[in-house]
Amino acid sequence: MATAPSTKLTPLLKDELDIVIPTIRNLDFLEMWRPFFEQYHLIIVQDGDPSKKIRVSDGFDYQIYNRNDVNRILGPKASCISFKDSACRCFVYIVAKDPSGKEINVLEQHIKNLLTPSTTHFFNTLYDPYREGADFVRGYSFSLREGAPTAVSHGLWLNIPDYDAPTQLVKPLERNTRYVDAVMTVPKGTLFPMCGMNLAFDRELIGQAMYFGLMGDRQPIGRYDDMWAGWCMKVICDHLGLGVKTGLPYIWHSKASNPFVNLKKEYKGIFWQEKAIPFFQSVSLPKECSSVEKCYLALAGEVKSKLGEVDPYFIKLADAMVTWIEAWNMVNSPGEKPAMTSLPNATSKK
Amino acid sequence: MATAPSTKLTPLLKDELDIVIPTIRNLDFLEMWRPFFEQYHLIIVQDGDPSKKIRVSDGFDYQIYNRNDVNRILGPKASCISFKDSACRCFVYIVAKDPSGKEINVLEQHIKNLLTPSTTHFFNTLYDPYREGADFVRGYSFSLREGAPTAVSHGLWLNIPDYDAPTQLVKPLERNTRYVDAVMTVPKGTLFPMCGMNLAFDRELIGQAMYFGLMGDRQPIGRYDDMWAGWCMKVICDHLGLGVKTGLPYIWHSKASNPFVNLKKEYKGIFWQEKAIPFFQSVSLPKECSSVEKCYLALAGEVKSKLGEVDPYFIKLADAMVTWIEAWNMVNSPGEKPAMTSLPNATSKK
Repeated sequence: MATAPSTKLTPLLKDELDIVIPTIRNLDFLEMWRPFFEQYHLIIVQDGDPSKKIRVSDGFDYQIYNRNDVNRILGPKASCISFKDSACRCFVYIVAKDPSGKEINVLEQHIKNLLTPSTTHFFNTLYDPYREGADFVRGYSFSLREGAPTAVSHGLWLNIPDYDAPTQLVKPLERNTRYVDAVMTVPKGTLFPMCGMNLAFDRELIGQAMYFGLMGDRQPIGRYDDMWAGWCMKVICDHLGLGVKTGLPYIWHSKASNPFVNLKKEYKGIFWQEKAIPFFQSVSLPKECSSVEKCYLALAGEVKSKLGEVDPYFIKLADAMVTWIEAWNMVNSPGEKPAMTSLPNATSKK
Repeated sequence: MATAPSTKLTPLLKDELDIVIPTIRNLDFLEMWRPFFEQYHLIIVQDGDPSKKIRVSDGFDYQIYNRNDVNRILGPKASCISFKDSACRCFVYIVAKDPSGKEINVLEQHIKNLLTPSTTHFFNTLYDPYREGADFVRGYSFSLREGAPTAVSHGLWLNIPDYDAPTQLVKPLERNTRYVDAVMTVPKGTLFPMCGMNLAFDRELIGQAMYFGLMGDRQPIGRYDDMWAGWCMKVICDHLGLGVKTGLPYIWHSKASNPFVNLKKEYKGIFWQEKAIPFFQSVSLPKECSSVEKCYLALAGEVKSKLGEVDPYFIKLADAMVTWIEAWNMVNSPGEKPAMTSLPNATSKK
């Protein structure tokens, strides 16, 4: 099957791709990524103290947003953006618009994943049929071979696996050394644990469902930001006929987080996920929900009424989901210029 | 997670595993498999002319059944067993019972797949969590980590891919060279194209659903035997909460079948699968169906009423599905000795 053409001269999605980096430190690690990232546009969310100066090496095309920027741009709606948690990154999903760049390696694979269809309705045993040298196997319905548009590409991690705190505690030395050379579609009707570390998505198709929730600072829960977004996103993709892939590309995950700190962040989530997962497995969206926005607001209503019984936190979260959509629309209202590029106080540098 | 213990001294499933080989030729290829198969029990189904003598090398523990044996054992119910099609193999699923053996390689992997649970209700992004060095990732519901009993292990093929005739014609030189080092569960609610070439299953759990249909000689269709079994089996596994895995082990598939011959066998199937797949995707079994047998008979009824409208062939097939269950019960009736070992005319040799 055709895969996206790769050329060194015109990077794929050169003007359509943003790389989002949430950080509380200097970005010295960017040097390692220079050959892959230099031609793309970076958007950095500075977590923590906004008066601290984040250092970025020369030669990158980037913008930095700190908490003051978030407050200024969203006004009272900034309440839906978490801080001191990787959930802060989703602020960028509202504003991101104007990149430039270059493709290889991790990025190239994510781009290929997004530009080729997903096989959401029927499982192909030889994995991604759109990959070079592969195809649909005998018995694969011909009418399903066009697949579904791909909304999300979820990459994996070698070395430190993305375990919860209890598993980290039980298996402190376990490392993921197995490079599985495959991309696969997470089938329709099946949920998965979406990790935010190595993730790409099509903002036009699914951006409004990529809200990372209320996590971290002053919230009763952390480290469930990406999970929450993944469950919401998958239910909506299934409803709208959009595809979600997982597998390649891998990143090397070098720094294990502290399992004791993680346990503190996670422990409520560990209880709540036993309620949240069955909720997402059984929730169904009305037929009239024909857009991501409509789906997301309907889902917020369901969260409020069903999970609100589990803990008042979910009522607050459901309200924040609505605020998120309002904030999105405020910044992206029709006729308005793409938000980012016209914001004078956001640090921008080439 | 714990995987099945591997030891060279006591082969796994030594007395519980049969290897089923449908053939129309001599079995010279068995020499290549000697180290893996020698300690297990082989059951060979001789397709075609029953007067032809099939040669098997010394040292294998095997039984051969030809069409005369099938007719003698099943009587009028032999009508449900296809001939001149790999579908003939499923006769053995009715009778197989008393093996011996040894585990390594392909067999060892299939055995491990069957002896460890499946993750049918939630997708684990790092693939089989029961494999050594792997586990469930962050966000995987703790209450789902026990998984489901595994009924089927579907292995893949390197070199010649299992393509339908149209794809064979379009891509005559395509070879599968990608060894994907993973085993994964086909999630609940998702169908897949089950290939019969490299397949293991737990006969107690799912045997009665493993009927390969009416195919080949005097039938309007061929090369859909395993697909048919796969769709029936998967719908029933989903209903009963049983797991199905695909991935490792690979076999090397060396002999491409003739695409022109295949097209003749397949062309009705290619039309019909566009009706059959949506049928299996939407069929639902009544709650009362609490056993494979009940499920299979209910499914036969649905096939008759729904697919019978597509072509009268499906009415005949639905009847054969009922005959298959009757034949199964005839040979396996409670209190009776396991069928195979007491059949005097079946060639048996150690």
